[in-house]
Amino acid sequence: MASEGSDMGSTGEINGSGNLMDFLDEPIPDVGTYEDFHTIDWLREKSRDTDRHRKIASKSKESIWEFIKGLLDAWSGWVVMLLIGLMAGTLAGVIDLAVDWMTDLKEGVCLSAFWYSHEQCCWTSNETTFDDRDKCPQWQKWSELMVGRSEGASAYVLNYFLYVMWALTFAFLAVSLVRVFAPYACGSGIPEIKTILSGFIIRGYLGKWTLLIKTVTLVLAVSSGLSLGKEGPLVHVACCCGNLFSGLFSKYSKNEAKRREVLSAAAAAGVSVAFGAPIGGVLFSLEEVSYYFPLKTLWRSFFAALVAAFTLRSINPFGNSRLVLFYVEYHTPWYMAELFPFILLGVFGGLWGTLFVRGNIAWCHRRKTTLLGKYPVLEVIAVTAITAIVAFPNPYTRRSTSELISELFNDCGALESSQLCDYINDSNMTRPIDDIPDRPAGPGVYAALWQLALALIFKIVITIFTFGMKIPSGLFIPSMAVGAIAGRIVGIGVEQMAYHHHDWIIFKNWCRPGADCVTPGLYAMVGAAACLGGVTRMTVSLVVIMFELTGGLEYIVPLMAAAVTSKWVADAFGKEGIYESHIHLNGYPFLDVKDEFTHRTLATDVMRPRRSEPPLVVLTQDSTTVEDVETLIKDTDYNGFPVVVSKESERLIGFVQRRDLLLAIKSARQKQDGVVSSSVVYFIEDAPQSPASSPQSLKLRRILNLCPFTVTDHTPMETVVDIFRKLGLRQCLVTRSGRLLGIITKKDVLRHMAQMANQDPESILFN
Amino acid sequence: MASEGSDMGSTGEINGSGNLMDFLDEPIPDVGTYEDFHTIDWLREKSRDTDRHRKIASKSKESIWEFIKGLLDAWSGWVVMLLIGLMAGTLAGVIDLAVDWMTDLKEGVCLSAFWYSHEQCCWTSNETTFDDRDKCPQWQKWSELMVGRSEGASAYVLNYFLYVMWALTFAFLAVSLVRVFAPYACGSGIPEIKTILSGFIIRGYLGKWTLLIKTVTLVLAVSSGLSLGKEGPLVHVACCCGNLFSGLFSKYSKNEAKRREVLSAAAAAGVSVAFGAPIGGVLFSLEEVSYYFPLKTLWRSFFAALVAAFTLRSINPFGNSRLVLFYVEYHTPWYMAELFPFILLGVFGGLWGTLFVRGNIAWCHRRKTTLLGKYPVLEVIAVTAITAIVAFPNPYTRRSTSELISELFNDCGALESSQLCDYINDSNMTRPIDDIPDRPAGPGVYAALWQLALALIFKIVITIFTFGMKIPSGLFIPSMAVGAIAGRIVGIGVEQMAYHHHDWIIFKNWCRPGADCVTPGLYAMVGAAACLGGVTRMTVSLVVIMFELTGGLEYIVPLMAAAVTSKWVADAFGKEGIYESHIHLNGYPFLDVKDEFTHRTLATDVMRPRRSEPPLVVLTQDSTTVEDVETLIKDTDYNGFPVVVSKESERLIGFVQRRDLLLAIKSARQKQDGVVSSSVVYFIEDAPQSPASSPQSLKLRRILNLCPFTVTDHTPMETVVDIFRKLGLRQCLVTRSGRLLGIITKKDVLRHMAQMANQDPESILFN
Repeated sequence: MASEGSDMGSTGEINGSGNLMDFLDEPIPDVGTYEDFHTIDWLREKSRDTDRHRKIASKSKESIWEFIKGLLDAWSGWVVMLLIGLMAGTLAGVIDLAVDWMTDLKEGVCLSAFWYSHEQCCWTSNETTFDDRDKCPQWQKWSELMVGRSEGASAYVLNYFLYVMWALTFAFLAVSLVRVFAPYACGSGIPEIKTILSGFIIRGYLGKWTLLIKTVTLVLAVSSGLSLGKEGPLVHVACCCGNLFSGLFSKYSKNEAKRREVLSAAAAAGVSVAFGAPIGGVLFSLEEVSYYFPLKTLWRSFFAALVAAFTLRSINPFGNSRLVLFYVEYHTPWYMAELFPFILLGVFGGLWGTLFVRGNIAWCHRRKTTLLGKYPVLEVIAVTAITAIVAFPNPYTRRSTSELISELFNDCGALESSQLCDYINDSNMTRPIDDIPDRPAGPGVYAALWQLALALIFKIVITIFTFGMKIPSGLFIPSMAVGAIAGRIVGIGVEQMAYHHHDWIIFKNWCRPGADCVTPGLYAMVGAAACLGGVTRMTVSLVVIMFELTGGLEYIVPLMAAAVTSKWVADAFGKEGIYESHIHLNGYPFLDVKDEFTHRTLATDVMRPRRSEPPLVVLTQDSTTVEDVETLIKDTDYNGFPVVVSKESERLIGFVQRRDLLLAIKSARQKQDGVVSSSVVYFIEDAPQSPASSPQSLKLRRILNLCPFTVTDHTPMETVVDIFRKLGLRQCLVTRSGRLLGIITKKDVLRHMAQMANQDPESILFN
Repeated sequence: MASEGSDMGSTGEINGSGNLMDFLDEPIPDVGTYEDFHTIDWLREKSRDTDRHRKIASKSKESIWEFIKGLLDAWSGWVVMLLIGLMAGTLAGVIDLAVDWMTDLKEGVCLSAFWYSHEQCCWTSNETTFDDRDKCPQWQKWSELMVGRSEGASAYVLNYFLYVMWALTFAFLAVSLVRVFAPYACGSGIPEIKTILSGFIIRGYLGKWTLLIKTVTLVLAVSSGLSLGKEGPLVHVACCCGNLFSGLFSKYSKNEAKRREVLSAAAAAGVSVAFGAPIGGVLFSLEEVSYYFPLKTLWRSFFAALVAAFTLRSINPFGNSRLVLFYVEYHTPWYMAELFPFILLGVFGGLWGTLFVRGNIAWCHRRKTTLLGKYPVLEVIAVTAITAIVAFPNPYTRRSTSELISELFNDCGALESSQLCDYINDSNMTRPIDDIPDRPAGPGVYAALWQLALALIFKIVITIFTFGMKIPSGLFIPSMAVGAIAGRIVGIGVEQMAYHHHDWIIFKNWCRPGADCVTPGLYAMVGAAACLGGVTRMTVSLVVIMFELTGGLEYIVPLMAAAVTSKWVADAFGKEGIYESHIHLNGYPFLDVKDEFTHRTLATDVMRPRRSEPPLVVLTQDSTTVEDVETLIKDTDYNGFPVVVSKESERLIGFVQRRDLLLAIKSARQKQDGVVSSSVVYFIEDAPQSPASSPQSLKLRRILNLCPFTVTDHTPMETVVDIFRKLGLRQCLVTRSGRLLGIITKKDVLRHMAQMANQDPESILFN
């Protein structure tokens, strides 16, 4: 209660300089807070933080203890970042280890220690070659364990059956946990986090319960072999950590704007651990997720991202001391002529992005509006069953998607035992480790191509139906898998063309016989970037994340060419990436900083009331009674009311929030004697003493916002949109020659933008 | 003229929807443009761009040709980026080559081809060892060429004399060219570019002439051996390229806001080629230079930076196929205990930053206010003479600063012949190329330490006096040199301590005898980052640039620890980096996005007129005569005037710019018959027909801004500052209950912020 009081004091002061105020004896509880699913007032929050800051600064002069407290407060931001980094890194490490183990559990178990994954199990084994290591005796497939046979039809069927069963078990557990304990733990979370960061309140979305359940179910969902990734959910998990730790310091817990600074940094830490790309993570947060991103946050995000990355590295879940999820090293440069297939991959990525966004949104819309949405558990079970049944026979879909991507990205070295590297070797060639010349493909490669093509079709279809189910699901990994498969196929194609036809004019200049010209792994990487770009419309952060994976500036140009092409192609079919589409689908009031509003409309065209509507509902500063106000609140559902000098003059003096008004009247009725329905409500500075005969008046200037935002009716809407975006307004009043004409709320702006976009869809081509 | 017309059309339309307007027959020339040293109106510029955009979009539906034109227009941004990248990369390459050659020219000449630098000259020679290569016969010192001797006192004196003479010649040429042809070519240019990007007009600052002269004089200034670098000026050069190419497309040349988007990207390209760090360049532009940086610009900047970097690499001025200026590769990790010396280096960097900023600003202030400023040529000559005379005897100051930094960053390999690597080798140790254990320092190292210490003192002193002279001068390289020297000294100290005392508790845990524990080169790099951070207060971009130099995430933590410490230490002594200080020194109206305004003042405290001042000068909408307006313009120097309904009601209807008013009246007097001094000026929509007896009235609604920005008198100043910053306003009107009270201009805001900062300097500790 006391703390609420101190908040109130500052809220009061915002409305005017201190000495002008008439303070009540006691603050009104909850005034200045927000309801669930409402938008915050950025300006007020920032103002409150400044007040807090000013108080600390002035107190710090009083004593050395206050000075130290002030310093500690100033440093609390860094402490929060450190904690977020540590926790996000630890959670990511634990998730990686658990996913590894449980994914392998679908196929078999380690006899020496059941909590070892296949790789860990065989790592300690004595076998020396890679081939033997994969088949070390400690690791037993289920069929070996149960019927003592690892080959043959019965073993295959048994393994198949257990694979599907494990998958169903994991998926059922995941969806049940989500349903029962934390409904907000489903999905990727990024659309909601974007909305929250833009100033929306969704209570519980970043709560402790969500954190716990999302972490557990993420492991289950990924392990079940569904076509989903852990990257988006890791961002959500990191943001939950951010929310958790920001609760430790009143600086962040009591201020919605400051809390969002922490959350932006947490999002960066999340991507940082998802890919081992701290710089990419910060840029992702900046480009894709955040709304209000001051430079101070940039620096702190970077710190959080680094701490998280190093924490993850010290846990070392991949066992390779590398920070990154897919570490690759290529030995040959790329050639100008290869830009053509790279751009083709970009086009593919753009088309995939469009298909995915449209297909997924259509399916999610159907889920929302039909019976389908009523049975989320059944849906998950069905999709998991289909996925597991189709995936098992194909070695490229049976393994986990990240392993698949990793293999596709890899360059075929001399020691590679993979089917994809089954090239026909020149027998009298000495085999250097690196720099193997292009070779003709062997039967293994051709078989792999077929399997990859089937895997590609399967992934494309199933991913569209998977994303949006009631389990944690990210789409980075599935998107990248689609691109990596397509890229590898194209890469092998180009490689074989170059080998068999190096006299063709397109190869002549750069590919001599016996040289290593084409790296199919690079094509896979470019394809992955293109597909991810098509779906999310990321640009700089995408290229930087990919750059951090390879660690060489060398390959930035192919990546960039593909990313740009993919974005252009996808944008030509519709401006919205998957996150924005989901935001719209869910109807969140999100004003995208990236949308450009280029229509020639004026504030007067958007404001309410329209010409045909009844006049604007206003309060007057000194002639409304408590009853009038209560009737107004009951009859309308506006979030706030402008206060004017008198209905005739229409001169605006301030704006009062519905919630504050409600709370203030309720509190006054309870605590202030003499406040009855016929009491006059005063919003002016010096309310006149009420005569003894009439009931006591109610002074409410302290809840009045004396600096409401106004624009004139001639203001172009693009300016209004800009103001809403940059200042994070909730509403804006419209005046002409000093007279109040109407009001524009954030929802009016969003509605108008949607209308305009529908009227003129072509204009996006020119943005 | 015709093009001005189309601009005017749109300017007119901004002020209201088209059908409300009364168009004159002919547009008034120059209305809507800006005077030199004035601030642009961001909202108006953006509005104009939207108009242009809308026109193209609607035209594009008319014919296929217009559609293609529209697409070309949309793509012109990318074309400009490509051109900037190509040109910036080429210029940087040419500058690097020229500097290399001219720096060596001070010591000698290549006989086989005089245009070869020392390295190029000896590269083609037959000598095989590194030692011999340095002394190849084709390269002749001046003494060898002139008196046939390379050793001995007379040769030394002759070389010394010619070294100083060449330095003086270069410096004299540089300062003369700057003085005569392009006074704007001096300095680093970054403070001015920051100001320009924030919306200020400095005509000619980014002109062709400046570009040419800055490029030439930059080569001369760097070659003269002065303590300055080419990084800042390269940003200026790149921005000149940006300005040049934005002139090719009316989309950019006619719109000051769009032009600034191009310039932001150009700045990124400049840093990209300065360090070979494209991502760092983009972040530098974002963090340090730019003001208005939409996400679209981020992506385009990245493209420009990449093109520039690759152009530079294909020119390959460093002869090592590397993109980066200082390529380093370390073979040992760092240990936790080393964080202590790293943080110490951070403290040193912060102190150096403070010393440099204060010293340099004091000296520049003296230059501005005393006779010193009258003799810039003499000043340059004197400083060059002192620099050359002191620098020659010390091998570490004689060579170019970038070579020095490069040597200091390097790890001592087995093949290293440098004095700094003169360690005493264990004779019965086999020498692997990498991973040489720590060894005791030999006499060469001790001699080098002394010389480095002297070089450090010299660099510290001379840099303070060099930066700000009338030649192009960047401070990245000198700052980094100071840090690298200090870092290397500390590094060698720690290394020798660890070698001689590995039983000490601080070394015991991580440094066994015979191991390679300490890398002095890493200390040099950390020191360089710390010192650069102290001077510029860069954070993320600094770490990313350094990361791109080393290419390993491994060393980010030491760099970050040093950078954070350095920033904190420096900030404790004063918030402003060198660029902000120079902006203030020059009195540019720059509203820093990074400054936080935390004082509790209201708009009413800042607005003019103050209580004691005469009332606000306003125009009325229908009762002012041409003569009244002319008198007003003559008597006041305000940049604009509010227009009200009547002086009594004080209801605001709009704002008119002084310049537009002047031009409109001038044009009307010339072209419209009957407009005389007693004509009434109408700002209303439907001006009444003037009776035959009275002179013809002048309708000026089209130059009236009908959507001036207003705030109420109770608005907290922090909100006002926020609005000014985010919307890029020039002025804002203050109202109370719909009545116009006063005006706040950008200068008022800056003045108020400066006042408040002086009143309460302590508060910076808590930011």
